[in-house]
Amino acid sequence: MKSDIEIARECTLEKIKKVATDIGIPREEVLNYGKYIAKIPVDLIDDEKVKQNNLILVTAITPTRAGIGKTTVSIGLALGLNKIGKNAVVALREPSLGPCFGMKGGAAGGGYAQVLPMENINLHFTGDFHAITSAHNMITALLDNYIYQNRSTEPGLKEVLWKRVLDVNDRGLRNIITGLGGSANGIPGQTGFDITPASEIMAILCLATDLEDLRRRVENILLGYKYDGSAFTVKDLGIAGAITVLLKDAINPNIVQTTENTAAFVHGGPFANIAHGCNSVLATKMAMSFSDYTITEAGFGADLGAEKFFNIKCRKAGLSPKLTIIVATAQGLKMHGGVALDKIKEPDMAGLTKGFENLDKHIENMKSFGQTVMVAFNRYAFDTDEEVAAIAAHCEKQGVKFVVNNAFLEGGEGAVKLAEAVVDSIENRPSEPLKFTYNDTDSIKTKIEKIAYDIYGAASVSFSEKANKMIRNIEELGISNFPVCIAKTQFSFSADPKAYGVSKGFDFKIND
Amino acid sequence: MKSDIEIARECTLEKIKKVATDIGIPREEVLNYGKYIAKIPVDLIDDEKVKQNNLILVTAITPTRAGIGKTTVSIGLALGLNKIGKNAVVALREPSLGPCFGMKGGAAGGGYAQVLPMENINLHFTGDFHAITSAHNMITALLDNYIYQNRSTEPGLKEVLWKRVLDVNDRGLRNIITGLGGSANGIPGQTGFDITPASEIMAILCLATDLEDLRRRVENILLGYKYDGSAFTVKDLGIAGAITVLLKDAINPNIVQTTENTAAFVHGGPFANIAHGCNSVLATKMAMSFSDYTITEAGFGADLGAEKFFNIKCRKAGLSPKLTIIVATAQGLKMHGGVALDKIKEPDMAGLTKGFENLDKHIENMKSFGQTVMVAFNRYAFDTDEEVAAIAAHCEKQGVKFVVNNAFLEGGEGAVKLAEAVVDSIENRPSEPLKFTYNDTDSIKTKIEKIAYDIYGAASVSFSEKANKMIRNIEELGISNFPVCIAKTQFSFSADPKAYGVSKGFDFKIND
Amino acid sequence: MKSDIEIARECTLEKIKKVATDIGIPREEVLNYGKYIAKIPVDLIDDEKVKQNNLILVTAITPTRAGIGKTTVSIGLALGLNKIGKNAVVALREPSLGPCFGMKGGAAGGGYAQVLPMENINLHFTGDFHAITSAHNMITALLDNYIYQNRSTEPGLKEVLWKRVLDVNDRGLRNIITGLGGSANGIPGQTGFDITPASEIMAILCLATDLEDLRRRVENILLGYKYDGSAFTVKDLGIAGAITVLLKDAINPNIVQTTENTAAFVHGGPFANIAHGCNSVLATKMAMSFSDYTITEAGFGADLGAEKFFNIKCRKAGLSPKLTIIVATAQGLKMHGGVALDKIKEPDMAGLTKGFENLDKHIENMKSFGQTVMVAFNRYAFDTDEEVAAIAAHCEKQGVKFVVNNAFLEGGEGAVKLAEAVVDSIENRPSEPLKFTYNDTDSIKTKIEKIAYDIYGAASVSFSEKANKMIRNIEELGISNFPVCIAKTQFSFSADPKAYGVSKGFDFKIND
Amino acid sequence: MKSDIEIARECTLEKIKKVATDIGIPREEVLNYGKYIAKIPVDLIDDEKVKQNNLILVTAITPTRAGIGKTTVSIGLALGLNKIGKNAVVALREPSLGPCFGMKGGAAGGGYAQVLPMENINLHFTGDFHAITSAHNMITALLDNYIYQNRSTEPGLKEVLWKRVLDVNDRGLRNIITGLGGSANGIPGQTGFDITPASEIMAILCLATDLEDLRRRVENILLGYKYDGSAFTVKDLGIAGAITVLLKDAINPNIVQTTENTAAFVHGGPFANIAHGCNSVLATKMAMSFSDYTITEAGFGADLGAEKFFNIKCRKAGLSPKLTIIVATAQGLKMHGGVALDKIKEPDMAGLTKGFENLDKHIENMKSFGQTVMVAFNRYAFDTDEEVAAIAAHCEKQGVKFVVNNAFLEGGEGAVKLAEAVVDSIENRPSEPLKFTYNDTDSIKTKIEKIAYDIYGAASVSFSEKANKMIRNIEELGISNFPVCIAKTQFSFSADPKAYGVSKGFDFKIND
Repeated sequence: MKSDIEIARECTLEKIKKVATDIGIPREEVLNYGKYIAKIPVDLIDDEKVKQNNLILVTAITPTRAGIGKTTVSIGLALGLNKIGKNAVVALREPSLGPCFGMKGGAAGGGYAQVLPMENINLHFTGDFHAITSAHNMITALLDNYIYQNRSTEPGLKEVLWKRVLDVNDRGLRNIITGLGGSANGIPGQTGFDITPASEIMAILCLATDLEDLRRRVENILLGYKYDGSAFTVKDLGIAGAITVLLKDAINPNIVQTTENTAAFVHGGPFANIAHGCNSVLATKMAMSFSDYTITEAGFGADLGAEKFFNIKCRKAGLSPKLTIIVATAQGLKMHGGVALDKIKEPDMAGLTKGFENLDKHIENMKSFGQTVMVAFNRYAFDTDEEVAAIAAHCEKQGVKFVVNNAFLEGGEGAVKLAEAVVDSIENRPSEPLKFTYNDTDSIKTKIEKIAYDIYGAASVSFSEKANKMIRNIEELGISNFPVCIAKTQFSFSADPKAYGVSKGFDFKIND
Repeated sequence: MKSDIEIARECTLEKIKKVATDIGIPREEVLNYGKYIAKIPVDLIDDEKVKQNNLILVTAITPTRAGIGKTTVSIGLALGLNKIGKNAVVALREPSLGPCFGMKGGAAGGGYAQVLPMENINLHFTGDFHAITSAHNMITALLDNYIYQNRSTEPGLKEVLWKRVLDVNDRGLRNIITGLGGSANGIPGQTGFDITPASEIMAILCLATDLEDLRRRVENILLGYKYDGSAFTVKDLGIAGAITVLLKDAINPNIVQTTENTAAFVHGGPFANIAHGCNSVLATKMAMSFSDYTITEAGFGADLGAEKFFNIKCRKAGLSPKLTIIVATAQGLKMHGGVALDKIKEPDMAGLTKGFENLDKHIENMKSFGQTVMVAFNRYAFDTDEEVAAIAAHCEKQGVKFVVNNAFLEGGEGAVKLAEAVVDSIENRPSEPLKFTYNDTDSIKTKIEKIAYDIYGAASVSFSEKANKMIRNIEELGISNFPVCIAKTQFSFSADPKAYGVSKGFDFKIND
Repeated sequence: MKSDIEIARECTLEKIKKVATDIGIPREEVLNYGKYIAKIPVDLIDDEKVKQNNLILVTAITPTRAGIGKTTVSIGLALGLNKIGKNAVVALREPSLGPCFGMKGGAAGGGYAQVLPMENINLHFTGDFHAITSAHNMITALLDNYIYQNRSTEPGLKEVLWKRVLDVNDRGLRNIITGLGGSANGIPGQTGFDITPASEIMAILCLATDLEDLRRRVENILLGYKYDGSAFTVKDLGIAGAITVLLKDAINPNIVQTTENTAAFVHGGPFANIAHGCNSVLATKMAMSFSDYTITEAGFGADLGAEKFFNIKCRKAGLSPKLTIIVATAQGLKMHGGVALDKIKEPDMAGLTKGFENLDKHIENMKSFGQTVMVAFNRYAFDTDEEVAAIAAHCEKQGVKFVVNNAFLEGGEGAVKLAEAVVDSIENRPSEPLKFTYNDTDSIKTKIEKIAYDIYGAASVSFSEKANKMIRNIEELGISNFPVCIAKTQFSFSADPKAYGVSKGFDFKIND
Repeated sequence: MKSDIEIARECTLEKIKKVATDIGIPREEVLNYGKYIAKIPVDLIDDEKVKQNNLILVTAITPTRAGIGKTTVSIGLALGLNKIGKNAVVALREPSLGPCFGMKGGAAGGGYAQVLPMENINLHFTGDFHAITSAHNMITALLDNYIYQNRSTEPGLKEVLWKRVLDVNDRGLRNIITGLGGSANGIPGQTGFDITPASEIMAILCLATDLEDLRRRVENILLGYKYDGSAFTVKDLGIAGAITVLLKDAINPNIVQTTENTAAFVHGGPFANIAHGCNSVLATKMAMSFSDYTITEAGFGADLGAEKFFNIKCRKAGLSPKLTIIVATAQGLKMHGGVALDKIKEPDMAGLTKGFENLDKHIENMKSFGQTVMVAFNRYAFDTDEEVAAIAAHCEKQGVKFVVNNAFLEGGEGAVKLAEAVVDSIENRPSEPLKFTYNDTDSIKTKIEKIAYDIYGAASVSFSEKANKMIRNIEELGISNFPVCIAKTQFSFSADPKAYGVSKGFDFKIND
């Protein structure tokens, strides 16, 4: 078996201008970053086309540490759809340099279902993460400078929430003291660096609908609280315009190609455990503007990623998938069935069967949004026919279509069946209009409770003193009409990363 | 008078592919970053063309805080040369985002002698600074991780020299404490951030001759000392290859265009007070490979920038300018003549005349390198004819050609006379082969003393205890054969930023 | 009503030599610290006298923020017993300078039941706290020095548990970074200062039986863990002898006098929420060596202070009180009955009656140790006769003697009834031999659980991951045979400081 | 030869009450701290007796690292004077616990000329250092609290000068960050701990004339600068009274006894390199109130200690010694004569003779104050008769009495000749009235320059930018009429600790 990088290097890449024009993007609008990568101006988005497009969400069961293979299914499905003559484009997140550095692959798919040029995508790509890093840290520097310059006349902020970011995994920067060495070096303070995918700039870039909307969102960023308890935002610094200029190129979606030279948009990469974890709204809409079928994915398990995709991204962007695909692996199901991690590659029908409950809960959750659900099975060499048959049978019993995906090994050819099933499903059994878990007008606590009860399956929800204080702050700031974005472990339904399967009767604790 | 940005916006840009092919770069080799910026692969450098090219160095008298206008002369000269039918390309440094942010212009020239697109050049440009930031900080993170992982068995480093960088002016990051919050967050340490132009990665990228040479230089970076006093380098971490991959695009020179659509290379931007302060060797050689006349500049006054240009950059790259232009302004001369800063725009013949000594010392210094010297005068509206005539007469007396440069107001047309004088000088009175201030085999102290006595004009040189210790370290590391790079104030010949004119009889103190 | 300090200043003090010789201490053994304070050498303790002495413990219901008045009862009882012709001495904790500074009074009783000279006792006294501060910080300095001197050859400690102390309320010192400014200033580290009463040196000084025993305890202090997980103690530093020398005077109990010139021992002051909260074993035994009745107290409510007094101090010192007095106030009972804090000075029979459950739980707890229990009621001017009668009746129903204490207003005269009741109780209904809550051989978890279930009334006990890790460490160190000392809020039976009355069915969480 | 501690333990101590009453102190006024140490109330000072007393200053040549033996001469002289029937008392500094800890002896003399009980004096003594530590840190805590409580309405201080102290040698505390861990733990700041003898509280306690004067000095302590540049003092905090209460016992001089049971006062211990380095004015005056001859010493060499003793302590206290004794050793003179440190115990007449210049400069300096000067020679076993004779001859040539002191080996008996010479000198050749080096009305710079030129022998004085700024601050605060206290190395006349002998023609640099 060839490695991902060997397969990537064997591919003959088309010039990106050709890939882009093939799906109808005017040649003049393609802004090259080298030969094989380009940005497409955000104003090419065609809202009419977006409305007509068949959007497909790819999500997964609760993942193992190695992942379940959502990206491979997403890319593979795009290849398969193109293989059967459909016009399909995939929209994905771009990887962070920090966590990827030094690893063989990244977040660009695998096997014969990759997006290319892999190495460039995994390194600096088009500089989007760097632009976000710059914008984020520029705000910090200007905020610090503001406080510093006014230190003899203004009391500063009671609490500064805004930190710094760097796209490097640097544990020493998590908790730092700044401003040392005398007053020429600023005011001492305790702060830290997050990794760039955790930047709020990343989150809002991915939700923005255009540059003006981005500017508005930048302006509203909450930097801290004044001593009277009121909010201090970027608007108070008067720098939203300058910060937005730093993001003027980063906002344009990036186009690359698949291992079979079809177009792919790779744009935006917020972490799914702390942010919404999806690629940018603009990349999804750009893909929808130049295709009939658009495939996109949502990070981690469906409880975490898909919940946010529907309740946050779709709500805000007016999207409504025609189909939701839940990716599953036999290994993952066995893990949830209680099989030890070093045994999940061995046949174990009992464990597998017990693990179905994890899949079932995700299916139930996806259906609660009004979605038609399909299960795509990423088959590995060591999966037995008996196991595959058992899962297929279980899905049938659940009234859910089950298809094996072989794109990893065979590229588009291996995803033809999946593609055909998808087309059939969308044509004959499209999803209902999207139903949200909660309403905009629900209180913050109600929103959290609805997610905890309805999606996570919690028996009770308790709020820490700190969490209660934060909620009061949010209510006082008059922003309780926004969706909530919950940061929790990706490894289980509950807050306990080792609670495999489906947790029941647990108390869901809100700390912050 | 229009502002720089207004002039920039009125310019009709050519596509960069056309600008590049106009000077003979094959279309296929132009790696676009949008329509108006591109990178040119380093392997297009033609050593034969480099040898035949007429290289011109633009330097200046000791500058005022507002600068003397070297970049405007450099670009203007290129425009002028092209105007009189010569094939001329300018090579410049790229600006840092940090210090430029929020200012109208940057380091891209001014008036009708600019490089464009100004805004992009001043912001992320092609991401070179971001790549350097990433590479620098990745080394830090991996070094910290190395020490952290081995903390129970190895004593760590006695002294860590390597810090972090960020391309933001953030005073709070200069002195920080890292690694707080328990052992999962690393080992507490006192360190800081420099600004990216001060990164050693920047310095070596600008001196590298190709990717392999860059890798070798990365490998040799001194990160700190072990407890036995021996050096700990990037090689000891085993990560030089990975770090070099992060710089694989950054090493390629960037091509942009002037206000008159001629080619300009803008690549590399180390600070001149702490590093060599010139654009990359590769950009200079790339410009030389596709022109007959190449103009380049060296930062700050000729004592600081030109000294390093000759002794470090030219020595290492085998370059030898045919001509050195010293840029002067009446304001600058009057400042050195003791006129108060708020009076230097007013006529003051006595002050002006007294200020000639600064110019004369720079002329003498440049001649000591074997250079033919020309003075280019950046004329301002408030300079009187009498003043200009006095400077012209003084230069004539010194046996140095004097030409007024009007490119700021008139573009290439305003630099025709300068261009003609340059061509005449190079054809009839080219510089001698380069003479260095010191030899490779001189001891570190001798090298420093030769620069201090011969270039700065010091009466004595004293070394602090710390400096002596550092010199001993360098000698023990066996690297005393390298050129020395002195960090001192750009505002005078001595170490006292307020010693205008020419300092005499001063003791030059080496602190570190 | 006169203030405490006015009453104190009106008292005519006897020379302390006279007070001491009055109870039989040889004149030559009295080590003066000024005229009114002395130390008594520890070797004057007479174990035979200790055995025959009638020891009385004064504890209280769960206190209000203003306290319940245990010290006033303790001193008052001593006065009352002397008044009726008994030879009685009280043993109390010495106050910390930090929390007392700036407040009118301290921890020296109140009204006509004080120990004197109040001001000196509340300030430096005999320097015991200073000696403990010195000894504690000397260990830190020598530990740091040890790690520093060996940093190039030994890996240091994986975790340092030992901090610094200062007898000042200085919030800025709680979390600090030390060792900054270059290697001459040590190795950077994150640590903090505790207040001196929280020093482990304080705790062991109060449990030590003589100087040799103290040395042994100093030697065993756990300073941190090595990388192999093993313990690093003062013994490993080889400095136990030197540290003990610093404590050679501090170990001797301090003698002062009451407002009625009877002897009182005031020695040792560990916090009751984090340490055992009693005066030193040596002071108690010294008082017992020179009296027939010795009164001592235990910090905060009986659940916290008396539990530790019995299970830790009495177990280790071989003491067994003949009587336990629980002090109660109408205000306290009303608070536990759910009356708002600003209403507890007003009559409220319903609230009072409901609050009896707190008293009852403490009575039950004290009886579980085999103690005869008496309730001393500190009556305030605003308490109604009806209220006092109700409490008296309730106590009678519980089979517990109830007496009103008026020593605050009337000195010994006001405690005569209490004294008579105490003598009667001890002569006719002395406590049984002490029964401990747990056995030495119980596991750490069992010990904690027994306290939580039997004393606090918890329904369940849960251990955090950190707590489990600590318990494993303790077991590995082979020291699980020691008593456990629980740090919890003094304001309720549970861990919730606002759970007045008696908490039931709560889960008791062990964090650390 | 017996060690100091062996000699100390062999001594039979008198009760301190007897020692004190022997010199006329009323028994009732002796405030015991144990049997052998007492404090004497400050109001026993008798100004009339002070005026009549014969005060003798003991100072020394520039010392070796091991010291020259001033304290041994001071105590020895007291013993000798008593031996010949004079009523003599010595006044000395009390040692710091930090630097003494772990060393055999301390600063209590040596051989048969010690003050006792040595161990107690070297440890906690009467708690003076602890009281100063408490007072100093209490100010810090209250200052921090003031800034913290007012942080939302007042801008805080532009610069905080006040740090913390601890009487422990703890390098990790020199540079620290405080106030970490969230706003409940204060405001982050960069600060440090000094050792207690460097506390300004120590300095002013030693200069105070009574408790009221101390309060006034506490009130005037400069804690920092406000943003408008004005001073912020303890008075602004309103806590001078409370702080003074913490020092109410510490202000009373401590009385102990010598190895021959004569009285000695040991009180106050400021460092001589940073503060005035003498024992308290009160101890000197107390000794003078109960004796005819009082011996006191001043730290380090006469350039440092005696200069401050005269210009600061005597000026402020109205004292005027009848005689100044300069202590010299052959080792010290040889060191100043350029003999290597490991050879100074061997005979070397050339080196010795060359070293006389150090002695001569000190003699000249002492004479400049109008003092009669005598040289006391501390003879060691390895000093040859030839060497001693050479020094004696040299002194005679200088017109200065030379006497050998043998008190180390023989106690008072060995100092009889010295005592007789002293009595003779005072009776027949007493010092002139004191002449100061500078006047109160001189400017700060003039004061510094006079000391540098006249005492240190500098050729020039230069002030750093920081020093100039500080001097301007002092002038603006209107306190330039105070004496100056210079912090410099104790190891030479100049600022270079290795410039033995007498430095000439050096530039004296003022940094801060």
